[in-house]
Amino acid sequence: MTAATFDFAAQLRADAPPPAALWSGFPKYNFVGGHNAPESIETMTLVDAARTALGREAPTLAMYNVLSGPQGYLPLREFLAAKLNRQAGIECSTDEILITSGSLQAIELVNKTLLAPGDVVVAEQTNYGGCISRWAKAGVEVVTVPLDQDGMRMDALEETLERLKNAGTPPKYIYTIPTVHNPTATIMSLERRHRFLELAEKYGVPIFEDECYSDLVWSGERPPALFALDTTGRVIFCGSFSKSIGPALRVGYLVARWPFLSRAVAAKNDAGSGAIEQMVLAEYCPDHFDAHVEKLNGLLQTKLDILIEALNENFGTTVEFTRPPGGIFLWLRLPDDVDTTKLTETAAAAGIAINPGAEWSKDYPAGDRHIRVCYASATEKELREGIAALADVCHDTFGVPTRSANQQR
Amino acid sequence: MTAATFDFAAQLRADAPPPAALWSGFPKYNFVGGHNAPESIETMTLVDAARTALGREAPTLAMYNVLSGPQGYLPLREFLAAKLNRQAGIECSTDEILITSGSLQAIELVNKTLLAPGDVVVAEQTNYGGCISRWAKAGVEVVTVPLDQDGMRMDALEETLERLKNAGTPPKYIYTIPTVHNPTATIMSLERRHRFLELAEKYGVPIFEDECYSDLVWSGERPPALFALDTTGRVIFCGSFSKSIGPALRVGYLVARWPFLSRAVAAKNDAGSGAIEQMVLAEYCPDHFDAHVEKLNGLLQTKLDILIEALNENFGTTVEFTRPPGGIFLWLRLPDDVDTTKLTETAAAAGIAINPGAEWSKDYPAGDRHIRVCYASATEKELREGIAALADVCHDTFGVPTRSANQQR
Repeated sequence: MTAATFDFAAQLRADAPPPAALWSGFPKYNFVGGHNAPESIETMTLVDAARTALGREAPTLAMYNVLSGPQGYLPLREFLAAKLNRQAGIECSTDEILITSGSLQAIELVNKTLLAPGDVVVAEQTNYGGCISRWAKAGVEVVTVPLDQDGMRMDALEETLERLKNAGTPPKYIYTIPTVHNPTATIMSLERRHRFLELAEKYGVPIFEDECYSDLVWSGERPPALFALDTTGRVIFCGSFSKSIGPALRVGYLVARWPFLSRAVAAKNDAGSGAIEQMVLAEYCPDHFDAHVEKLNGLLQTKLDILIEALNENFGTTVEFTRPPGGIFLWLRLPDDVDTTKLTETAAAAGIAINPGAEWSKDYPAGDRHIRVCYASATEKELREGIAALADVCHDTFGVPTRSANQQR
Repeated sequence: MTAATFDFAAQLRADAPPPAALWSGFPKYNFVGGHNAPESIETMTLVDAARTALGREAPTLAMYNVLSGPQGYLPLREFLAAKLNRQAGIECSTDEILITSGSLQAIELVNKTLLAPGDVVVAEQTNYGGCISRWAKAGVEVVTVPLDQDGMRMDALEETLERLKNAGTPPKYIYTIPTVHNPTATIMSLERRHRFLELAEKYGVPIFEDECYSDLVWSGERPPALFALDTTGRVIFCGSFSKSIGPALRVGYLVARWPFLSRAVAAKNDAGSGAIEQMVLAEYCPDHFDAHVEKLNGLLQTKLDILIEALNENFGTTVEFTRPPGGIFLWLRLPDDVDTTKLTETAAAAGIAINPGAEWSKDYPAGDRHIRVCYASATEKELREGIAALADVCHDTFGVPTRSANQQR
């Protein structure tokens, strides 16, 4: 690089984030970040879709938003309206869908439309790290509600909403990942979904339903979305192709009734999301999406089983977890004396990337005992070697596990 | 759409923009928005590029940012480093390039990194409307500098910088579009570029150089970029494929030395820009970009000549303009009694979309006498009919032009 003598320090915003480090490649054992399984990608089918879509539509790339307007490529919205109806019970028109650059942009648009510093949101106690960091940056207070194997606990939600009402600080929304929760992978029961909507109505609160992982349910069956069960228009819904096809596409979607969606469309001032991805997906999905997801779910379960075997072999009873009913991650609990923030650091030095619990809940202190392990992109070999290497690091740092592969360490 | 009874009014941020209207298609005569020429798109060459790129790279779509890290697809950065060197005289490495979702995101990242409410920026007097609205929203004061046929006037810039220095309000940056300025299409002379850098150095100010249109120069020759002439690292540079290939791609780029670029990379928290567009461009551009741009420039000049003919025929001496040396728009001056904000409204009602001068300068009041006419996407027929229709509307509203097509009206 050329020498640069100009000092930008005096020009930076006071709250500018620290500089990024130059990217140096993925770690050897990469168990973070929501990557997907490269072997699941159907290259030739995608190539065919690209050929067909571009062969027909390429000249429209000369126009902002091709010929579909700011809500995104119409054939993709048509696929989504049908898919959401078939799989999540949602009835919506293409006018109630906004294509976004990943579901992250959907989250940004909702926050930009609703949240000001000092506002309150309610969320599950463990929770998507990307939301936690954005709420913090926006100066928003997060009040959390515990969850169990059936999802967010409705008794605790009711108490929380009552308390916030009495304090005069009603939440701007309740954020939830009801179907394959991140990081616990729980699926909220139908009964709780109905109760959730009753409580939201009673307290006059919108719900922000994040369904990024809901295609990845092993049984292939899932309860209807909260959006589907709602009759009031209070549910804002987002989803993504990142987990079902691939995150490098950056194609997500926001679904809401027009009184809210019209605000999100106004807030989306990026002159549109990339059109070729939208065209390729719109061409590929009608004939291939369901079969692709079924195949992907099979691959993911195989990887999950390998991960669980590797954990049993290398950690034995030192880790606790429940086999998830879907998704791409496993949420593990380590013993009380394992500081997972420190473990994450020592593991990183050994080429193993994991998420520490502290990143996944604003209530969990640095030094919490949970970790999140994403298993979708690793090979069988990487899973087995990486978990063995993680057990070595953990033992070297904290003295546990004391036994691995039936051998005393 | 389903009835939605929930009222979001109480939940909205106080400064939420008004709701969007449902998109109802492009106007019949569409002379706004920076669209490009659909007939310039080389469909089969793009299809081939997509087939080759996806055939090789599709499995990497399963990984965030494919295998290139957060700065964007490496082969595209390699093309850009070579192109910027060849055409703009820029020497930079691939590590000094950040691929963005259109140059709009590049602008957002620069602003997010540098600008806080109350800050000052300096810019050319007439200026990109997308920047003007973003500065206003960010609470930033814009101090403008007049420009002439050689670009921003350096005597006026020096006075401005001196005045701001004495007032204790030095600008965070000087924003400029030196090569095919928006909206005047002027190209800053080499002499002024050198002087510009001297002044920026003297007053310790960064320069933000927007080169979105710089591929579209009829002569094929352009002065070196300010970035290329600078030796201090104070110039931040952005460009785009929107005007050279198509805006629906949403692929732009930010170029800066690492002390600044590392901040912009940190600010880009969208988990990457769409990978398929980047792959298709990286495959297409090395062999086809230059020839495509040459052909496009030929097409654009033909359209420009048709526009000028239509203006001469329908407006005669009622409009004043200079034939631009490049770009996709013509900046017109109408007589003193033509309020172009009102003209824009009456034209819109007749299916003719134009940009009024008031959108293109924070110094120009509503009712200014300039309009910007984009001619890239319209057909010959649309240009001729649309300008005739605009003359009708203008005559009906303001009584001018009094002669069209050699006939008294």
